[in-house]
Amino acid sequence: MPAMTNTKRKVAVVLSGCGFLDGAEISEAVLTLYWLDRCDLEPVCVAPRMMQAHVVDHAAKRPVEGAARDVFVEAARIARGRLRDLAEVSADEFDAAVLPGGFGAAKNLSDFATRGAAATAHPDVARLLRGLHAQRKPIGAVCIAPAVVAAVLGHECHPELTIGDDADTAAAIEAMGARHRAAPVDRCVVDRDNRIVSAPAYMYDARIRDVGAGIEQLVNALTELLAEGGR
Amino acid sequence: MPAMTNTKRKVAVVLSGCGFLDGAEISEAVLTLYWLDRCDLEPVCVAPRMMQAHVVDHAAKRPVEGAARDVFVEAARIARGRLRDLAEVSADEFDAAVLPGGFGAAKNLSDFATRGAAATAHPDVARLLRGLHAQRKPIGAVCIAPAVVAAVLGHECHPELTIGDDADTAAAIEAMGARHRAAPVDRCVVDRDNRIVSAPAYMYDARIRDVGAGIEQLVNALTELLAEGGR
Repeated sequence: MPAMTNTKRKVAVVLSGCGFLDGAEISEAVLTLYWLDRCDLEPVCVAPRMMQAHVVDHAAKRPVEGAARDVFVEAARIARGRLRDLAEVSADEFDAAVLPGGFGAAKNLSDFATRGAAATAHPDVARLLRGLHAQRKPIGAVCIAPAVVAAVLGHECHPELTIGDDADTAAAIEAMGARHRAAPVDRCVVDRDNRIVSAPAYMYDARIRDVGAGIEQLVNALTELLAEGGR
Repeated sequence: MPAMTNTKRKVAVVLSGCGFLDGAEISEAVLTLYWLDRCDLEPVCVAPRMMQAHVVDHAAKRPVEGAARDVFVEAARIARGRLRDLAEVSADEFDAAVLPGGFGAAKNLSDFATRGAAATAHPDVARLLRGLHAQRKPIGAVCIAPAVVAAVLGHECHPELTIGDDADTAAAIEAMGARHRAAPVDRCVVDRDNRIVSAPAYMYDARIRDVGAGIEQLVNALTELLAEGGR
Protein backbone atom coordinates (compact mmCIF):
# COMPACT_ATOMS: atom_id res chain seq x y z
CA MET A 1 0.00 0.00 0.00
CA PRO A 2 1.24 3.49 -0.69
CA ALA A 3 2.19 5.61 2.30
CA MET A 4 -0.56 7.90 3.51
CA THR A 5 0.22 11.53 2.86
CA ASN A 6 -0.93 13.98 5.47
CA THR A 7 -2.37 16.80 3.38
CA LYS A 8 -3.83 18.75 6.28
CA ARG A 9 -2.89 22.37 6.67
CA LYS A 10 -0.65 22.81 9.71
CA VAL A 11 -1.31 25.70 12.06
CA ALA A 12 1.23 26.68 14.72
CA VAL A 13 -0.48 27.52 18.02
CA VAL A 14 1.98 29.67 19.93
CA LEU A 15 1.60 29.10 23.67
CA SER A 16 3.09 31.35 26.35
CA GLY A 17 2.61 29.21 29.45
CA CYS A 18 -0.53 27.92 31.16
CA GLY A 19 -2.81 30.38 32.96
CA PHE A 20 -4.05 33.83 31.98
CA LEU A 21 -2.16 35.83 34.62
CA ASP A 22 1.34 34.57 33.78
CA GLY A 23 0.95 32.47 30.63
CA ALA A 24 -1.50 31.52 27.90
CA GLU A 25 -5.20 32.01 28.58
CA ILE A 26 -6.22 28.37 28.95
CA SER A 27 -9.76 28.50 27.53
CA GLU A 28 -8.62 30.56 24.54
CA ALA A 29 -5.85 28.06 23.86
CA VAL A 30 -8.11 25.00 24.17
CA LEU A 31 -10.93 26.53 22.12
CA THR A 32 -8.39 27.47 19.43
CA LEU A 33 -7.16 23.85 19.29
CA TYR A 34 -10.77 22.62 19.28
CA TRP A 35 -12.00 24.84 16.44
CA LEU A 36 -8.86 24.24 14.37
CA ASP A 37 -9.46 20.49 14.64
CA ARG A 38 -13.16 20.90 13.85
CA CYS A 39 -12.14 22.79 10.68
CA ASP A 40 -9.81 19.89 9.85
CA LEU A 41 -6.69 22.00 10.26
CA GLU A 42 -3.82 20.41 12.18
CA PRO A 43 -2.81 22.38 15.27
CA VAL A 44 0.87 22.15 16.22
CA CYS A 45 1.60 23.63 19.63
CA VAL A 46 4.85 25.55 19.93
CA ALA A 47 6.33 27.50 22.84
CA PRO A 48 9.62 29.16 23.71
CA ARG A 49 11.98 27.56 26.22
CA MET A 50 12.42 30.43 28.66
CA MET A 51 11.51 31.28 32.23
CA GLN A 52 8.18 33.00 32.73
CA ALA A 53 8.35 36.70 33.56
CA HIS A 54 6.31 35.90 36.69
CA VAL A 55 4.51 33.10 38.44
CA VAL A 56 1.11 34.31 39.63
CA ASP A 57 -1.12 32.57 42.17
CA HIS A 58 -4.37 32.48 40.19
CA ALA A 59 -6.52 32.02 43.31
CA ALA A 60 -5.04 34.93 45.29
CA LYS A 61 -4.20 36.81 42.05
CA ARG A 62 -0.81 37.76 43.46
CA PRO A 63 2.73 37.13 42.12
CA VAL A 64 4.52 34.31 43.95
CA GLU A 65 7.87 35.67 45.12
CA GLY A 66 10.82 33.45 44.29
CA ALA A 67 8.80 31.04 42.16
CA ALA A 68 10.06 30.08 38.72
CA ARG A 69 8.36 28.19 35.92
CA ASP A 70 9.40 27.50 32.35
CA VAL A 71 7.05 28.65 29.58
CA PHE A 72 7.61 25.50 27.50
CA VAL A 73 7.11 23.09 30.41
CA GLU A 74 3.91 24.83 31.54
CA ALA A 75 2.58 25.11 27.97
CA ALA A 76 3.03 21.33 27.76
CA ARG A 77 0.11 21.03 30.20
CA ILE A 78 -2.24 22.48 27.59
CA ALA A 79 -0.53 20.60 24.74
CA ARG A 80 -0.61 17.25 26.61
CA GLY A 81 3.16 17.03 26.16
CA ARG A 82 3.01 17.36 22.38
CA LEU A 83 4.66 20.61 21.49
CA ARG A 84 7.74 21.92 19.76
CA ASP A 85 10.43 24.34 20.78
CA LEU A 86 9.69 27.68 19.12
CA ALA A 87 13.45 28.11 18.51
CA GLU A 88 13.44 25.03 16.30
CA VAL A 89 10.47 25.73 14.04
CA SER A 90 10.32 27.71 10.82
CA ALA A 91 7.48 29.52 9.04
CA ASP A 92 8.18 27.16 6.12
CA GLU A 93 6.68 24.25 8.09
CA PHE A 94 3.29 25.87 8.71
CA ASP A 95 0.37 27.15 6.69
CA ALA A 96 -0.72 29.59 9.37
CA ALA A 97 -0.31 30.45 13.05
CA VAL A 98 -2.61 31.47 15.90
CA LEU A 99 -1.53 33.21 19.10
CA PRO A 100 -3.96 32.75 22.01
CA GLY A 101 -3.97 35.53 24.59
CA GLY A 102 -3.34 35.74 28.31
CA PHE A 103 -0.69 37.86 30.01
CA GLY A 104 1.90 35.38 28.78
CA ALA A 105 1.58 36.98 25.34
CA ALA A 106 2.29 40.38 26.88
CA LYS A 107 4.95 39.22 29.37
CA ASN A 108 6.70 36.21 27.81
CA LEU A 109 6.11 36.41 24.04
CA SER A 110 6.67 40.17 24.20
CA ASP A 111 7.21 42.90 26.78
CA PHE A 112 3.99 44.73 25.95
CA ALA A 113 2.76 44.50 29.58
CA THR A 114 5.63 46.66 30.79
CA ARG A 115 6.64 48.68 27.72
CA GLY A 116 3.32 49.30 25.97
CA ALA A 117 3.76 50.88 22.53
CA ALA A 118 7.56 50.51 22.85
CA ALA A 119 7.21 46.73 23.11
CA THR A 120 9.29 44.24 21.19
CA ALA A 121 8.47 40.59 20.64
CA HIS A 122 10.54 37.56 21.64
CA PRO A 123 13.02 37.08 18.74
CA ASP A 124 11.64 33.64 17.80
CA VAL A 125 8.07 34.94 17.82
CA ALA A 126 9.14 37.84 15.59
CA ARG A 127 10.97 35.47 13.25
CA LEU A 128 7.93 33.17 12.93
CA LEU A 129 5.45 35.99 12.35
CA ARG A 130 7.70 37.78 9.85
CA GLY A 131 8.29 34.54 7.99
CA LEU A 132 4.60 33.69 7.79
CA HIS A 133 3.69 37.22 6.70
CA ALA A 134 6.41 37.25 4.01
CA GLN A 135 4.92 34.03 2.62
CA ARG A 136 1.38 35.48 2.83
CA LYS A 137 0.37 32.79 5.31
CA PRO A 138 -2.50 33.83 7.60
CA ILE A 139 -1.95 34.85 11.22
CA GLY A 140 -4.60 34.78 13.96
CA ALA A 141 -4.32 36.60 17.28
CA VAL A 142 -6.68 36.36 20.25
CA CYS A 143 -7.28 38.69 23.21
CA ILE A 144 -4.08 40.69 23.93
CA ALA A 145 -1.98 38.76 21.36
CA PRO A 146 -2.73 41.33 18.61
CA ALA A 147 -0.30 43.55 20.55
CA VAL A 148 2.43 41.00 19.74
CA VAL A 149 1.46 41.09 16.06
CA ALA A 150 1.53 44.90 16.17
CA ALA A 151 4.95 44.88 17.81
CA VAL A 152 6.32 42.77 14.94
CA LEU A 153 4.35 43.92 11.89
CA GLY A 154 2.61 47.16 12.92
CA HIS A 155 4.88 49.67 11.21
CA GLU A 156 5.60 47.28 8.38
CA CYS A 157 2.07 46.64 7.08
CA HIS A 158 -0.34 48.62 9.32
CA PRO A 159 -2.68 45.71 9.98
CA GLU A 160 -6.28 46.11 11.08
CA LEU A 161 -6.53 44.50 14.52
CA THR A 162 -8.95 44.33 17.42
CA ILE A 163 -8.32 44.08 21.13
CA GLY A 164 -12.01 44.67 21.89
CA ASP A 165 -12.89 48.15 23.12
CA ASP A 166 -10.23 49.07 25.69
CA ALA A 167 -9.17 52.61 24.76
CA ASP A 168 -5.67 52.56 26.27
CA THR A 169 -4.70 49.25 24.72
CA ALA A 170 -6.18 50.33 21.38
CA ALA A 171 -4.10 53.54 21.51
CA ALA A 172 -0.94 51.52 22.18
CA ILE A 173 -1.75 49.21 19.26
CA GLU A 174 -2.18 52.25 17.00
CA ALA A 175 1.07 53.79 18.26
CA MET A 176 2.77 50.61 17.03
CA GLY A 177 1.46 51.27 13.53
CA ALA A 178 -1.64 49.07 13.51
CA ARG A 179 -5.18 50.30 12.89
CA HIS A 180 -7.53 49.36 15.69
CA ARG A 181 -11.12 48.29 15.05
CA ALA A 182 -13.48 47.76 18.00
CA ALA A 183 -15.25 44.40 18.08
CA PRO A 184 -17.53 42.58 20.53
CA VAL A 185 -16.46 39.39 22.30
CA ASP A 186 -18.19 37.02 19.88
CA ARG A 187 -16.74 38.52 16.70
CA CYS A 188 -13.41 38.74 14.91
CA VAL A 189 -11.82 41.35 12.68
CA VAL A 190 -10.42 40.21 9.34
CA ASP A 191 -7.66 42.14 7.57
CA ARG A 192 -7.96 40.47 4.19
CA ASP A 193 -5.03 42.34 2.59
CA ASN A 194 -2.60 41.43 5.35
CA ARG A 195 -4.24 38.05 5.99
CA ILE A 196 -4.43 38.71 9.73
CA VAL A 197 -7.47 37.90 11.88
CA SER A 198 -8.05 38.87 15.50
CA ALA A 199 -10.69 38.23 18.17
CA PRO A 200 -10.98 40.04 21.55
CA ALA A 201 -12.12 37.04 23.66
CA TYR A 202 -11.18 37.60 27.33
CA MET A 203 -10.24 41.22 26.75
CA TYR A 204 -13.85 41.33 27.96
CA ASP A 205 -15.14 39.87 31.23
CA ALA A 206 -16.99 37.38 29.10
CA ARG A 207 -18.90 34.13 29.10
CA ILE A 208 -16.92 31.20 27.75
CA ARG A 209 -19.53 30.48 25.07
CA ASP A 210 -19.05 33.97 23.63
CA VAL A 211 -15.27 33.60 23.77
CA GLY A 212 -15.75 30.30 21.93
CA ALA A 213 -17.96 31.98 19.32
CA GLY A 214 -15.31 34.63 18.63
CA ILE A 215 -12.59 32.00 18.28
CA GLU A 216 -14.85 29.89 16.04
CA GLN A 217 -15.27 32.96 13.80
CA LEU A 218 -11.53 33.58 13.80
CA VAL A 219 -10.76 29.99 12.79
CA ASN A 220 -13.45 30.10 10.10
CA ALA A 221 -11.90 33.31 8.73
CA LEU A 222 -8.47 31.65 8.80
CA THR A 223 -9.89 28.67 6.92
CA GLU A 224 -11.33 30.96 4.25
CA LEU A 225 -8.03 32.80 3.88
CA LEU A 226 -6.26 29.46 3.47
CA ALA A 227 -8.81 28.37 0.86
CA GLU A 228 -8.28 31.60 -1.08
CA GLY A 229 -4.56 30.92 -1.25
CA GLY A 230 -1.74 33.32 -0.69
CA ARG A 231 -1.71 35.58 -3.73
CA MET B 1 -37.09 47.63 39.18
CA PRO B 2 -37.31 44.24 40.87
CA ALA B 3 -34.08 42.42 41.45
CA MET B 4 -33.17 39.95 38.72
CA THR B 5 -33.44 36.37 39.85
CA ASN B 6 -30.85 34.00 38.49
CA THR B 7 -32.88 30.97 37.52
CA LYS B 8 -30.08 29.13 35.80
CA ARG B 9 -29.27 25.63 36.90
CA LYS B 10 -25.91 25.54 38.70
CA VAL B 11 -23.48 22.77 37.89
CA ALA B 12 -20.43 22.16 40.08
CA VAL B 13 -17.35 21.41 37.97
CA VAL B 14 -14.94 19.58 40.25
CA LEU B 15 -11.35 20.39 39.30
CA SER B 16 -8.33 18.43 40.53
CA GLY B 17 -5.49 20.73 39.47
CA CYS B 18 -4.35 21.90 36.03
CA GLY B 19 -2.70 19.40 33.70
CA PHE B 20 -3.56 15.81 32.84
CA LEU B 21 -0.54 14.14 34.46
CA ASP B 22 -0.99 15.60 37.95
CA GLY B 23 -4.32 17.44 37.88
CA ALA B 24 -7.42 18.02 35.79
CA GLU B 25 -7.24 17.30 32.06
CA ILE B 26 -7.29 20.87 30.77
CA SER B 27 -9.17 20.37 27.50
CA GLU B 28 -11.82 18.22 29.18
CA ALA B 29 -12.30 20.88 31.86
CA VAL B 30 -12.53 23.76 29.37
CA LEU B 31 -14.84 21.89 26.99
CA THR B 32 -17.07 20.97 29.95
CA LEU B 33 -17.31 24.65 30.94
CA TYR B 34 -17.91 25.62 27.30
CA TRP B 35 -20.72 23.13 26.65
CA LEU B 36 -22.38 23.81 30.01
CA ASP B 37 -22.47 27.52 29.13
CA ARG B 38 -23.75 26.78 25.62
CA CYS B 39 -26.57 24.77 27.22
CA ASP B 40 -27.29 27.79 29.46
CA LEU B 41 -26.30 25.94 32.60
CA GLU B 42 -24.12 27.86 35.04
CA PRO B 43 -20.80 26.17 35.73
CA VAL B 44 -19.35 26.75 39.21
CA CYS B 45 -15.77 25.56 39.53
CA VAL B 46 -14.87 23.92 42.82
CA ALA B 47 -11.63 22.28 43.98
CA PRO B 48 -10.19 20.93 47.21
CA ARG B 49 -7.51 22.86 49.08
CA MET B 50 -4.83 20.20 49.34
CA MET B 51 -1.36 19.53 48.02
CA GLN B 52 -1.20 17.60 44.73
CA ALA B 53 -0.06 13.98 45.05
CA HIS B 54 2.67 14.83 42.52
CA VAL B 55 3.94 17.60 40.30
CA VAL B 56 4.74 16.22 36.85
CA ASP B 57 6.80 17.95 34.18
CA HIS B 58 4.38 17.65 31.24
CA ALA B 59 7.13 18.17 28.64
CA ALA B 60 9.49 15.51 30.00
CA LYS B 61 6.57 13.48 31.43
CA ARG B 62 8.53 12.88 34.65
CA PRO B 63 7.65 13.68 38.28
CA VAL B 64 9.48 16.75 39.59
CA GLU B 65 11.20 15.73 42.83
CA GLY B 66 10.62 18.12 45.72
CA ALA B 67 8.07 20.22 43.87
CA ALA B 68 4.76 21.04 45.55
CA ARG B 69 1.61 22.60 44.14
CA ASP B 70 -1.81 23.16 45.64
CA VAL B 71 -4.80 21.64 43.79
CA PHE B 72 -7.02 24.68 44.44
CA VAL B 73 -4.41 27.23 43.37
CA GLU B 74 -3.59 25.33 40.15
CA ALA B 75 -7.28 24.71 39.38
CA ALA B 76 -7.71 28.50 39.61
CA ARG B 77 -5.74 28.73 36.36
CA ILE B 78 -8.53 26.93 34.52
CA ALA B 79 -11.25 28.75 36.49
CA ARG B 80 -9.69 32.20 35.92
CA GLY B 81 -9.60 32.69 39.69
CA ARG B 82 -13.34 32.09 40.10
CA LEU B 83 -13.72 28.91 42.09
CA ARG B 84 -14.90 27.73 45.46
CA ASP B 85 -13.34 25.59 48.13
CA LEU B 86 -14.83 22.11 47.85
CA ALA B 87 -14.86 21.92 51.68
CA GLU B 88 -17.31 24.83 51.79
CA VAL B 89 -19.89 23.75 49.22
CA SER B 90 -22.93 21.55 49.67
CA ALA B 91 -24.94 19.43 47.26
CA ASP B 92 -27.92 21.63 48.23
CA GLU B 93 -26.40 24.54 46.25
CA PHE B 94 -26.13 22.71 42.93
CA ASP B 95 -28.45 21.10 40.43
CA ALA B 96 -25.76 18.76 39.12
CA ALA B 97 -21.99 18.18 39.04
CA VAL B 98 -19.43 17.18 36.43
CA LEU B 99 -15.99 15.74 37.14
CA PRO B 100 -13.50 16.21 34.29
CA GLY B 101 -10.73 13.63 34.09
CA GLY B 102 -6.95 13.72 34.20
CA PHE B 103 -4.74 11.91 36.70
CA GLY B 104 -5.79 14.50 39.28
CA ALA B 105 -9.11 12.65 39.54
CA ALA B 106 -7.22 9.41 40.26
CA LYS B 107 -4.47 10.93 42.46
CA ASN B 108 -6.01 13.97 44.20
CA LEU B 109 -9.81 13.47 44.17
CA SER B 110 -9.28 9.78 44.95
CA ASP B 111 -6.44 7.27 45.30
CA PHE B 112 -7.57 5.15 42.34
CA ALA B 113 -4.18 5.54 40.60
CA THR B 114 -2.42 3.68 43.41
CA ARG B 115 -5.16 1.54 44.98
CA GLY B 116 -7.30 0.55 41.98
CA ALA B 117 -10.51 -1.20 43.02
CA ALA B 118 -9.69 -0.54 46.70
CA ALA B 119 -9.78 3.21 46.06
CA THR B 120 -11.56 5.72 48.24
CA ALA B 121 -12.50 9.25 47.27
CA HIS B 122 -11.48 12.49 48.97
CA PRO B 123 -14.03 12.97 51.80
CA ASP B 124 -15.40 16.22 50.36
CA VAL B 125 -15.80 14.66 46.91
CA ALA B 126 -17.60 11.71 48.48
CA ARG B 127 -19.85 14.05 50.48
CA LEU B 128 -20.76 16.09 47.37
CA LEU B 129 -21.46 13.06 45.19
CA ARG B 130 -23.47 11.26 47.90
CA GLY B 131 -25.46 14.43 48.55
CA LEU B 132 -26.27 14.97 44.87
CA HIS B 133 -27.18 11.34 44.36
CA ALA B 134 -29.45 11.32 47.45
CA GLN B 135 -31.29 14.32 45.98
CA ARG B 136 -31.45 12.63 42.55
CA LYS B 137 -29.37 15.39 41.00
CA PRO B 138 -27.42 14.29 37.90
CA ILE B 139 -23.69 13.57 37.97
CA GLY B 140 -21.37 13.62 34.97
CA ALA B 141 -17.91 12.04 34.87
CA VAL B 142 -15.32 12.30 32.10
CA CYS B 143 -12.30 10.12 31.23
CA ILE B 144 -11.01 8.42 34.42
CA ALA B 145 -13.39 10.34 36.74
CA PRO B 146 -16.02 7.54 36.55
CA ALA B 147 -13.59 5.65 38.82
CA VAL B 148 -14.21 8.33 41.47
CA VAL B 149 -17.97 7.93 41.05
CA ALA B 150 -17.57 4.16 41.34
CA ALA B 151 -15.47 4.54 44.49
CA VAL B 152 -18.27 6.54 46.12
CA LEU B 153 -21.46 5.06 44.68
CA GLY B 154 -20.45 1.78 43.04
CA HIS B 155 -21.62 -0.68 45.69
CA GLU B 156 -24.51 1.58 46.66
CA CYS B 157 -26.32 1.86 43.32
CA HIS B 158 -24.30 -0.15 40.76
CA PRO B 159 -24.18 2.63 38.16
CA GLU B 160 -23.59 2.04 34.47
CA LEU B 161 -20.35 3.83 33.62
CA THR B 162 -17.83 4.01 30.79
CA ILE B 163 -14.11 4.55 30.86
CA GLY B 164 -13.83 3.73 27.14
CA ASP B 165 -12.46 0.30 26.34
CA ASP B 166 -9.49 -0.27 28.66
CA ALA B 167 -10.00 -3.77 30.07
CA ASP B 168 -8.01 -3.35 33.30
CA THR B 169 -9.66 -0.08 34.25
CA ALA B 170 -13.08 -1.49 33.34
CA ALA B 171 -12.41 -4.50 35.59
CA ALA B 172 -11.47 -2.22 38.49
CA ILE B 173 -14.65 -0.18 37.94
CA GLU B 174 -16.69 -3.38 38.06
CA ALA B 175 -14.88 -4.59 41.18
CA MET B 176 -16.10 -1.37 42.83
CA GLY B 177 -19.69 -2.36 42.09
CA ALA B 178 -20.33 -0.41 38.90
CA ARG B 179 -21.35 -1.96 35.57
CA HIS B 180 -18.97 -1.01 32.76
CA ARG B 181 -20.18 -0.24 29.25
CA ALA B 182 -17.63 0.29 26.46
CA ALA B 183 -18.06 3.51 24.48
CA PRO B 184 -16.11 5.31 21.75
CA VAL B 185 -14.46 8.68 22.35
CA ASP B 186 -17.27 10.76 20.83
CA ARG B 187 -20.08 9.17 22.83
CA CYS B 188 -21.37 9.07 26.38
CA VAL B 189 -23.14 6.44 28.45
CA VAL B 190 -26.35 7.45 30.23
CA ASP B 191 -27.54 5.63 33.35
CA ARG B 192 -31.05 7.04 33.44
CA ASP B 193 -32.06 5.32 36.68
CA ASN B 194 -29.07 6.58 38.63
CA ARG B 195 -28.95 9.86 36.69
CA ILE B 196 -25.23 9.43 36.00
CA VAL B 197 -23.59 10.16 32.62
CA SER B 198 -20.02 9.38 31.60
CA ALA B 199 -17.80 9.99 28.56
CA PRO B 200 -14.39 8.40 27.91
CA ALA B 201 -12.68 11.43 26.28
CA TYR B 202 -8.88 11.21 26.71
CA MET B 203 -9.05 7.62 27.97
CA TYR B 204 -8.35 7.32 24.24
CA ASP B 205 -5.42 8.90 22.39
CA ALA B 206 -7.98 11.10 20.70
CA ARG B 207 -8.49 14.19 18.61
CA ILE B 208 -9.76 17.16 20.58
CA ARG B 209 -12.82 17.52 18.34
CA ASP B 210 -13.92 13.98 19.25
CA VAL B 211 -13.27 14.63 22.93
CA GLY B 212 -15.40 17.75 22.52
CA ALA B 213 -18.16 15.75 20.82
CA GLY B 214 -18.29 13.27 23.69
CA ILE B 215 -18.45 16.06 26.27
CA GLU B 216 -21.14 17.87 24.22
CA GLN B 217 -23.17 14.64 24.34
CA LEU B 218 -22.59 14.28 28.07
CA VAL B 219 -23.75 17.85 28.74
CA ASN B 220 -26.78 17.35 26.48
CA ALA B 221 -27.67 14.20 28.42
CA LEU B 222 -27.25 16.10 31.69
CA THR B 223 -29.54 18.84 30.37
CA GLU B 224 -32.18 16.26 29.49
CA LEU B 225 -31.96 14.66 32.93
CA LEU B 226 -32.36 18.09 34.51
CA ALA B 227 -35.39 18.81 32.32
CA GLU B 228 -36.97 15.51 33.33
CA GLY B 229 -36.69 16.43 36.99
CA GLY B 230 -35.53 14.28 39.84
CA ARG B 231 -38.36 11.84 40.51
